[in-house]
Amino acid sequence: MDNCKAIVFDAYGTLFDVHTVTEKCELIFPRLGGKISNTWRQKQLEYTWLRSLMGRYEDFWEVTRDALVFTLKEQKVEWSDEALSDILNEYLHLKPYNEVPAALGKLQVQGKQLAVLSNGTPHMLQSVIRHAGLASKFSYVISVDERKIFKPFMDVYQLAPDKLGVHKEEVLFISSNPWDVSGAKVFGFQVCWINRFDKQFDELGVEPDVVVRTLDELAEKLQREG
Amino acid sequence: MDNCKAIVFDAYGTLFDVHTVTEKCELIFPRLGGKISNTWRQKQLEYTWLRSLMGRYEDFWEVTRDALVFTLKEQKVEWSDEALSDILNEYLHLKPYNEVPAALGKLQVQGKQLAVLSNGTPHMLQSVIRHAGLASKFSYVISVDERKIFKPFMDVYQLAPDKLGVHKEEVLFISSNPWDVSGAKVFGFQVCWINRFDKQFDELGVEPDVVVRTLDELAEKLQREG
Repeated sequence: MDNCKAIVFDAYGTLFDVHTVTEKCELIFPRLGGKISNTWRQKQLEYTWLRSLMGRYEDFWEVTRDALVFTLKEQKVEWSDEALSDILNEYLHLKPYNEVPAALGKLQVQGKQLAVLSNGTPHMLQSVIRHAGLASKFSYVISVDERKIFKPFMDVYQLAPDKLGVHKEEVLFISSNPWDVSGAKVFGFQVCWINRFDKQFDELGVEPDVVVRTLDELAEKLQREG
Repeated sequence: MDNCKAIVFDAYGTLFDVHTVTEKCELIFPRLGGKISNTWRQKQLEYTWLRSLMGRYEDFWEVTRDALVFTLKEQKVEWSDEALSDILNEYLHLKPYNEVPAALGKLQVQGKQLAVLSNGTPHMLQSVIRHAGLASKFSYVISVDERKIFKPFMDVYQLAPDKLGVHKEEVLFISSNPWDVSGAKVFGFQVCWINRFDKQFDELGVEPDVVVRTLDELAEKLQREG
């Protein structure tokens, strides 16, 4: 990682576990929690890509709700407005992955400027970050909502260097989502893929500069490199 | 369907069964045929959307190959160049769904102008259509390759009215892919969803004008409406 002045994080799936919602789904729809959580996440991503291509942006809260509605219809279950809200609100307090709080502390001590660049709305991001006690870690929390289009459209990555006052080549972008790592690499960031669950990287013509299993591992690696 | 002058078809999944490939996959990778076919199709679509958003178009043949490579890596199987080619070449002779040839004949007799508008490359489309004996059915076979971006980006739907010399409101667009039906509807076509497998429609803010189970059903419906 050459001349890295800022570290910019994806939020959902990278810092925060989107499958935190499984428990609540399981409570309301017994035996379907895992299935609902998986389909919901897949459709949420698809809808961000499709709405971006169609030029029909709705913010991430709406897209997340639409994806949940699709999922429940597909499962042919019945639900109340209250149950839908209950499940959706889980997105406001997703749990960070275990190692994240301490690892962010280590990176901060190393004097790196830390920021978030996410598809989430400003409200969603503020809520989930505050709930996890991580608000003091980030100098900027940037939402694509300013551009009314989602990742991996190139313009949204530009928000980070613009806000942080650095060149894109000086940014280390970190995501667990291979498509997001690929988009950020094409844009011109240095990129790190956190591969916690031994997944296969996507075949989109680019590769991550660094691959780690946890954020801890990256913090140690950066410390060694000084 | 008001004042419909032309019927424009999606190809893959609509006229042609993308899971024709299962048999060949099963032959080369026993017990993995269905799994490979499903993941391959999902990744193929994702890569069209992601490459379009990233501004990194590669044609549908390349994207289809990349998606297959991802799928085989994910399955942790070994393969030869020959096996990869063999599987990939299945895309050049996918089978049409059973009712398709006769139903196209019925629509032709009704005096409708028929065309294809597909993500496929011109070579892929000519091959699959010729192999199925359907070349005489279509007055135009249109590939998004002219625009170097994939559906559901709005500009690619414009190719059909431009080539056919009709207004977009006079086009009935037919697809089995809910995201494609949604894109076409947002663009301004009349749209028909062929829902052969009792799937759930997507939550992208629009609905199909007509839903049928087979292309036959649509041909009969149009005949009744005169």
